[in-house]
Amino acid sequence: MKPFMDKDFLLSTPTARTLFHDYAAAMPIIDYHCHVSPQEIFEDKRFDNIAQVWLAGDHYKWRLMRSNGVEERFITGDAPDREKFQKFAEALPRAIGNPMYHWCHLELKTYFGYEGVLNGDTAEEVWQLTAERLKNENMGVRGLIAQSNVAFIGTTDDPVDSLEWHKKLAADTTMSATVAPSFRPDKALNIDKAGWLAYITRLSEVSGVAIDGIDALETALIRRIEHFAAHGCRASDHGLDFAVFRLQDRRTVDAVVKKGLRGEAVTADEAAALKTALLLCCAAEYTRRGWVMQIHYNCLRNPNSAMFRQLGPDTGFDCIGPLGGANALALLLDAMHTQNALPRTILYSLDGGDNAFLDSLIGSFQGSEIRGKLQHGSAWWFNDTKQGMIDQLTSLANLSILGNFVGMLTDSRSFLSYTRHEYFRRILCELIGGLVENGEYPADMPTLGGLVQDICYRNAERYFEVRRK
Amino acid sequence: MKPFMDKDFLLSTPTARTLFHDYAAAMPIIDYHCHVSPQEIFEDKRFDNIAQVWLAGDHYKWRLMRSNGVEERFITGDAPDREKFQKFAEALPRAIGNPMYHWCHLELKTYFGYEGVLNGDTAEEVWQLTAERLKNENMGVRGLIAQSNVAFIGTTDDPVDSLEWHKKLAADTTMSATVAPSFRPDKALNIDKAGWLAYITRLSEVSGVAIDGIDALETALIRRIEHFAAHGCRASDHGLDFAVFRLQDRRTVDAVVKKGLRGEAVTADEAAALKTALLLCCAAEYTRRGWVMQIHYNCLRNPNSAMFRQLGPDTGFDCIGPLGGANALALLLDAMHTQNALPRTILYSLDGGDNAFLDSLIGSFQGSEIRGKLQHGSAWWFNDTKQGMIDQLTSLANLSILGNFVGMLTDSRSFLSYTRHEYFRRILCELIGGLVENGEYPADMPTLGGLVQDICYRNAERYFEVRRK
Amino acid sequence: MKPFMDKDFLLSTPTARTLFHDYAAAMPIIDYHCHVSPQEIFEDKRFDNIAQVWLAGDHYKWRLMRSNGVEERFITGDAPDREKFQKFAEALPRAIGNPMYHWCHLELKTYFGYEGVLNGDTAEEVWQLTAERLKNENMGVRGLIAQSNVAFIGTTDDPVDSLEWHKKLAADTTMSATVAPSFRPDKALNIDKAGWLAYITRLSEVSGVAIDGIDALETALIRRIEHFAAHGCRASDHGLDFAVFRLQDRRTVDAVVKKGLRGEAVTADEAAALKTALLLCCAAEYTRRGWVMQIHYNCLRNPNSAMFRQLGPDTGFDCIGPLGGANALALLLDAMHTQNALPRTILYSLDGGDNAFLDSLIGSFQGSEIRGKLQHGSAWWFNDTKQGMIDQLTSLANLSILGNFVGMLTDSRSFLSYTRHEYFRRILCELIGGLVENGEYPADMPTLGGLVQDICYRNAERYFEVRRK
Repeated sequence: MKPFMDKDFLLSTPTARTLFHDYAAAMPIIDYHCHVSPQEIFEDKRFDNIAQVWLAGDHYKWRLMRSNGVEERFITGDAPDREKFQKFAEALPRAIGNPMYHWCHLELKTYFGYEGVLNGDTAEEVWQLTAERLKNENMGVRGLIAQSNVAFIGTTDDPVDSLEWHKKLAADTTMSATVAPSFRPDKALNIDKAGWLAYITRLSEVSGVAIDGIDALETALIRRIEHFAAHGCRASDHGLDFAVFRLQDRRTVDAVVKKGLRGEAVTADEAAALKTALLLCCAAEYTRRGWVMQIHYNCLRNPNSAMFRQLGPDTGFDCIGPLGGANALALLLDAMHTQNALPRTILYSLDGGDNAFLDSLIGSFQGSEIRGKLQHGSAWWFNDTKQGMIDQLTSLANLSILGNFVGMLTDSRSFLSYTRHEYFRRILCELIGGLVENGEYPADMPTLGGLVQDICYRNAERYFEVRRK
Repeated sequence: MKPFMDKDFLLSTPTARTLFHDYAAAMPIIDYHCHVSPQEIFEDKRFDNIAQVWLAGDHYKWRLMRSNGVEERFITGDAPDREKFQKFAEALPRAIGNPMYHWCHLELKTYFGYEGVLNGDTAEEVWQLTAERLKNENMGVRGLIAQSNVAFIGTTDDPVDSLEWHKKLAADTTMSATVAPSFRPDKALNIDKAGWLAYITRLSEVSGVAIDGIDALETALIRRIEHFAAHGCRASDHGLDFAVFRLQDRRTVDAVVKKGLRGEAVTADEAAALKTALLLCCAAEYTRRGWVMQIHYNCLRNPNSAMFRQLGPDTGFDCIGPLGGANALALLLDAMHTQNALPRTILYSLDGGDNAFLDSLIGSFQGSEIRGKLQHGSAWWFNDTKQGMIDQLTSLANLSILGNFVGMLTDSRSFLSYTRHEYFRRILCELIGGLVENGEYPADMPTLGGLVQDICYRNAERYFEVRRK
Repeated sequence: MKPFMDKDFLLSTPTARTLFHDYAAAMPIIDYHCHVSPQEIFEDKRFDNIAQVWLAGDHYKWRLMRSNGVEERFITGDAPDREKFQKFAEALPRAIGNPMYHWCHLELKTYFGYEGVLNGDTAEEVWQLTAERLKNENMGVRGLIAQSNVAFIGTTDDPVDSLEWHKKLAADTTMSATVAPSFRPDKALNIDKAGWLAYITRLSEVSGVAIDGIDALETALIRRIEHFAAHGCRASDHGLDFAVFRLQDRRTVDAVVKKGLRGEAVTADEAAALKTALLLCCAAEYTRRGWVMQIHYNCLRNPNSAMFRQLGPDTGFDCIGPLGGANALALLLDAMHTQNALPRTILYSLDGGDNAFLDSLIGSFQGSEIRGKLQHGSAWWFNDTKQGMIDQLTSLANLSILGNFVGMLTDSRSFLSYTRHEYFRRILCELIGGLVENGEYPADMPTLGGLVQDICYRNAERYFEVRRK
């Protein structure tokens, strides 16, 4: 029996252990897609207790507590932090096999030196220990980033964002990692969701463009892309509930925008037409600037309408949306490619059943500008589990070139989540080590170590031009 | 090499073996969803030979024989029992890797003490041995239930059923297990299938309600729910070919019912509107009474129309229906939740590709009334295989809380199928033991044993209020 | 650690090794579905270098190179053969976990005796060695077939093909294997694709039938079926982008044909109506003649329109089409079955997510004419990987009878691909051996060896009536 989460956690063969300890572990982290706050980085935010770190905004943990029948007041409500933490600690041991179990213990071990097991009985011990450690100098946000060996952080930012905190970070020579914004214009595209008109008004103000139709809307977005580019942006992100493609002539799309500007409801087809137009416009701009385009899709957002009204979005009520969209996504890529405006693109589906489809689709649109121009993103959100990562890596290896993969990202709001890169690297080394031990690839350690380091760091470094400040 | 199906069958690690033998094996069985006949239980039905037990109504075995090219007269026809058994025994060894192979040998071992291997050559030996053993006192239905350590049986019953056999069973103090009916009103919902009008006439008679519209139809169903409640019912079951949600105003739904009552064909949308209304009505009643609602969906029924005409439904010709329906199911749960009428609910899809979707969906509708209020049901029907159960358990563990799972059910028409609980428990212990042996969970046997016993028995005991007579 | 691809490659247990070496390895190969050229067989084509063998037409390898950022001139362009091979050799080591890695090294080992590892550094060594070996007497197409122990080759042929090369091959008594044509009438069905009218004109000429409507079109196809039958054909193949079923009356279908003949565009529904009619017509003819019908579906063809215009079809730009179609496929089989015209049928979906659906569907339409009348075809194209084959075999074993499976085919354009049968056989023996070693099936070697030989050879021999010349 292997000991619980020791130094060889998830590494069952000698080759896997060598690859992890001698090649993967020391590589810096490029966290090219996450949701941390640049302000918190600049201000070097500190935390009073483990509940603030873990339970203040992590909807994964909220969801786990709800699945254990915990009342909402201990989750998002006004119960004291210590009681919230107790409820979480009591739920965790029941979640055997859940990645949360590993994430929590990796974080306790790495950042707090806790080698025990968290449960209802040890919650007080953990509470005390973590509170004590959080007082340490290096336990502010900057200290966490530095001790995690993070080289690059790609945040997720709205086009109307002034990027003031990114500006300050860029000017701060004491900052160890590069922090760059990513352009996420979802709100400008979502003409079929509440708040679009108010958002467009804000975009109009910030961009200085009077938005009265599709031309002006695109101009406003391009202005903001320019602004982002001036502040080190090199990636965008699009969150689509489902893949859309509806190519319409300019006049038709303009009419849709005008309809939305009048506050009228648009049809699903009209919304799709606008989204298609703006995706193509953005893709052209990204291509021009060498940016990476990320597309996240197949998410069923806010299915629980009562809780959405109570708590708003991103509070742990979304679910996987197995909504297909294969044809639409293929047509979208083709339209970009046809107009010579297909940027480096990373595709993520929340439906793990899309793995093989995506791995075959990217193979139809590769280019010679860069190895692995089109990428199938790392197992996303609900798929970000040991099994989910094995499935994504196996499918990618089967249908594409694993050695060109840009690897892991946290997608997280927390500065303790960098241990997920360790989790990924262990799984990657176990998988590659397993192939070698099974006689499926030569036991040539320099080649293998090179592949592992490429996937853990160098491919992303090259893909996101990390060395460009 | 492990011996063929010995006491450590499917248990490859010390932890798995300890969990199974010391914790799981002795737990009573709660078979909360099955299709056995309460009359056969009350009358303590006996069998003359193994063909009567195995081949009289088990469409899994019929299907296996057809896949081996066996003529229908040896399957559902008038060939002698011994010849039918011979054909089955000859087909079985070709079905390597099929759960049927394990089920049959588990049943032969457990109930008949046969330690050999069934095939064409040993068929006669097995025929003789089983015929002899079937004469034993404890080989009637009640003996099989008692020796299987069954604590609770949830049958599946039509709303028009008088429940006379359940009444007799409840009054019979010699009966070892609790036998409770489950309310399955599919025929009342299926206005788009043949026989609806005749069924409504019968429902009208039994309930004493003149059904002339949606109000009366709902009243009639509620009367029957009351009748079922009075006879120990605590669960319902809905078999939907595919998930539907079409919320319409009362007047529209009433018009659909009236159209059906006139014997006119309804459209798919009209049928969906009626089904939606009745599902919501039923859900409210179940919630009020603390019943469990089960929803089975994504089944392509009777695709072989010639054989359907010849043999009727449930004769081994159905297949998996990968029909999606994610949106509809999410909307249905939300509508129930919004009207405060979301009961404890177990979701089962016949499409194993829905595993992750369902595991994420239940997380969006949990409640604090009970741990694990919404459940993803155990791998159903075609998925009820070793791999199918591993997939369901792994996905559930990844996305929800495995420790709160209500576990296994047989879904069977046979009183020998209780060994499938043993099969499930072995797979569960192997999976949990594997996590521990791999260092993914602490080797804390009391905690692990408690989780295993919860999943094998205590969660279902609590969820179905088994101690309530 | 197992050595890299030694004699026990992929065989991790004693049972697996015995099954492969003592039972599977020596069985002849029946390659019942492939795309090799009968002319090249008759003329005993020879090759100058490894690039001609590997890179002249293999779109799997082209795709791999594109995924590594290789420029098109080194792929399908005019770069010298040696340079193309260099680019491929440099890409291959990055494709760890890709079946291409194993296929290439199996081919180098089996046909060229190369025991090393191909990469950029060894490319020259491999280039020289293979060029030398290609001069050997037995390295022409016929030598490759003979040394691969191939008993039967089923090519893929257009209805307008004269079959002249098949005629010559049949008359050639020095030919070791039986080479039979397969009837693939896709172009006659694809009224919704460019080139249909020109194709119909050609079909008209070749068949001697003036095609002026559905009756004549069917007559023309039947004439060609007769022609194929006269030249040893015993199988057909249909490539459907997605499953269709739209049953229309004769007059409607006739109007669709006439519309197409006038050069007018037809709607999707009209195309579906014609395809349905022709599939049913063909199925009846196949049934009459005891032919096998193969249906390949769920493929998204040519999504990259620019590359399609540049290079045409089948150049490495297709992808998996997760397009569903479960209902349509079930209805199509039912319509065939109802008219007593359901031939032996093999179903292949390019979407691996359809595995369980197909395995359950075939179980609804089996017949007593032959064991395993309906088959779920071996893991196809993008699924033809170690994991893809394990998934297909496991699903088939779970839901049907693995012992009745007709097994592997290459689907290849290359005469070196016969090693894929070895790859399949190793995976099959590992899977079956694993079940035995895990106590899930008795360690009865004659029975196990018989099952393995059935799946590797005898089932296909019987299913395709290989002994019939």
